[in-house]
Amino acid sequence: MKFTPLIQELIDSFKILPGVGPKSAQRMAFQLLEQNQTGAARLAKALQTALSGICKCKICRNFSEQENCPVCSELTRVESGQVCVVATPSDVLAIEETGHYHGRYFVLMGLLSPLDGVGPEELGLDLLAQQLSAGQISELILATPPSIEGDATAYYITDMAKDTTAKVSQLAQGVPMGGDISNIDSRTLGHAFSGRKFIEQS
Amino acid sequence: MKFTPLIQELIDSFKILPGVGPKSAQRMAFQLLEQNQTGAARLAKALQTALSGICKCKICRNFSEQENCPVCSELTRVESGQVCVVATPSDVLAIEETGHYHGRYFVLMGLLSPLDGVGPEELGLDLLAQQLSAGQISELILATPPSIEGDATAYYITDMAKDTTAKVSQLAQGVPMGGDISNIDSRTLGHAFSGRKFIEQS
Repeated sequence: MKFTPLIQELIDSFKILPGVGPKSAQRMAFQLLEQNQTGAARLAKALQTALSGICKCKICRNFSEQENCPVCSELTRVESGQVCVVATPSDVLAIEETGHYHGRYFVLMGLLSPLDGVGPEELGLDLLAQQLSAGQISELILATPPSIEGDATAYYITDMAKDTTAKVSQLAQGVPMGGDISNIDSRTLGHAFSGRKFIEQS
Repeated sequence: MKFTPLIQELIDSFKILPGVGPKSAQRMAFQLLEQNQTGAARLAKALQTALSGICKCKICRNFSEQENCPVCSELTRVESGQVCVVATPSDVLAIEETGHYHGRYFVLMGLLSPLDGVGPEELGLDLLAQQLSAGQISELILATPPSIEGDATAYYITDMAKDTTAKVSQLAQGVPMGGDISNIDSRTLGHAFSGRKFIEQS
């Protein structure tokens, strides 16, 4: 005996979600059908309206419901001339939560990974190049993650900005808050050493 | 800064799913929007067709796409007179996989739990009582889980079948296959002791 086709299709569809295997998908399908049909209808509607209503901002490529996202529409952010390059929309949120940055963003929606077919075009780097050559950017802050792909992407963008007036900076790497020195991986510790700061003694 | 309303609603909708917290919901929403819009559309459609196309079998209360589910439509199963009472549709599947049982089922879609507002009516026990008094059932096999709610439900159903011709049986409880005796909880071990079988010596 198998599940009926409609239930099987629902279970298979849940398996699309990240971190959801066959057992979890089955639990999700049954719980929605047994106990929460209102929730199931709400999820279906949210998916559909998100798919039809969400596009990418024409300036920063972040998800937006208008052509230009709220961040790119703020005059003070645009006039700061600072552009922070991040890999994903969640990174934007994390940086906004620090309260330390008041410029605008450029969201790559991924990282360079030629083997997976992700090249400069997929990351919208032609759009960034236009903005660089138009002289709209005074400082380009690279906030790509410290990984092979992240470093390759940062290197590529640094190279793009070479012949423009934009200064390029990168987030400091080192020991995280609350980090226990003995438990930190050697690459991070290496970065922390090479980026060490002298303390002014008075 | 917050997510745009459509993204926030999508994230909140994912939080409805069992075992999905705020971070997982965010990851699900972003991954579908960034990398798998086809998958998102498929999930939305699967939810909607499941909600509109799946009803409960009028005989066994299991999920079905017709009035009578395929199991209850099999003449040999109905004629066996055996009815296995289970809590959820997944239990039906698990029992079918054993290949040891060839009767039909009765799916409670829950267990008695007065504090949560789940009484005999919510479990369709009036329907089971009808089938019992109509003399359609020769053996009622209780396969409710060994828990307080499961035992209470089994006790209630046993009481219901008292004045009918149906015999009532319950799944054997004891040491599971591959179970390490020292790691088994004391209740299970107690059941295994009281249910011990003498080995015929020849």
